[in-house]
Amino acid sequence: MQLRRADVLRGARELLDAEGLDGVTMRKLGAALNVQAGGLYWHFRSKQALLEAVAEDLLAGVAASPPAGPWDQRLVTLAHRLRQAMLGVRDGARLIAETFVTEPNTTLAGLTGMQILIDAGLPPEQAAWTMFAVAHYVLGHTIEEQAAGPDRAAKLAALAETGPDVRELAAAIAADPGRRFEFGLALVVDGIRVRLGPRTPADS
Amino acid sequence: MQLRRADVLRGARELLDAEGLDGVTMRKLGAALNVQAGGLYWHFRSKQALLEAVAEDLLAGVAASPPAGPWDQRLVTLAHRLRQAMLGVRDGARLIAETFVTEPNTTLAGLTGMQILIDAGLPPEQAAWTMFAVAHYVLGHTIEEQAAGPDRAAKLAALAETGPDVRELAAAIAADPGRRFEFGLALVVDGIRVRLGPRTPADS
Repeated sequence: MQLRRADVLRGARELLDAEGLDGVTMRKLGAALNVQAGGLYWHFRSKQALLEAVAEDLLAGVAASPPAGPWDQRLVTLAHRLRQAMLGVRDGARLIAETFVTEPNTTLAGLTGMQILIDAGLPPEQAAWTMFAVAHYVLGHTIEEQAAGPDRAAKLAALAETGPDVRELAAAIAADPGRRFEFGLALVVDGIRVRLGPRTPADS
Repeated sequence: MQLRRADVLRGARELLDAEGLDGVTMRKLGAALNVQAGGLYWHFRSKQALLEAVAEDLLAGVAASPPAGPWDQRLVTLAHRLRQAMLGVRDGARLIAETFVTEPNTTLAGLTGMQILIDAGLPPEQAAWTMFAVAHYVLGHTIEEQAAGPDRAAKLAALAETGPDVRELAAAIAADPGRRFEFGLALVVDGIRVRLGPRTPADS
């Protein structure tokens, strides 16, 4: 049977889930799909090209339907979708960070964020820069979230013993990542609101 | 001659600069230092422990002297130092993201950020959460900055051809990373200022 591009992509995603980003090799993928490496290279010219395709695939749902509502709600929805997309596979945030994709899903996510900020009242250049600030926050949060190793809980417990301020830091690291993500995202959105001028009262 | 811990650390950092994070192995490090792998394991029980020590080492200067001035200036200085520390070695931001360190330099950087925010007027819990939001922004920005591959310029040029909004996005990616970093950081700081109440006018 012919090996299809979609089969390779699905296999790569399963391998990523099983082995993590450092464990993905064309050799292992070939073995998992029971094909020669040559069959993979017919669809993707390199491992990097394959990873880019997985990254692009991961972002498929982020902006497919544009979020609705007031600009801040739309932006928060988009940021949540971006985090969820990255959480959809092991090391997903690292995958996004380590690939540079200019394909439709990725570009649409960026353009949608930018359009939300233009609709809010930012000039295009500021909207683009602001979109990247939001994306970098989402990326940094999600990478750290996905990097949490098995020794983290023990280290955190030891750290919390060393003083009240450190205990507060440890509690913040140990907190529900979804809540922590929302907290930081609201901070960024408040910062954007400041740039839009005094029209909207801050709702901290 | 006796292999010292500091030699192993320096060797690991040089190997990281030469090969990137994915290229660091105990075997290569042993070869570079002209020692058996056993000599390395005498100082570090695993590659992960060694990477944690490199990460901790990288953050040595971040909070060694606490930044001075008003809280926002202090926070911006700390964030700049964090970015510079990560830029100090190839894949430095990934290294920080992929290790979980509770040693003095790393903990002091976190505590210093938290203290700046407490001094600004935030309660300790909010200060800790806010510190992580700032750190995640810095991390996400710097990881993306360091991940820029050789094919990025060509892809960006092709992307910029496809429409005016996309051209604006491409320009934001291609912009000086230092300026882009400051822009996003100022946004986060404005968001924090909102949380502190109406004492300080927004200076967007």
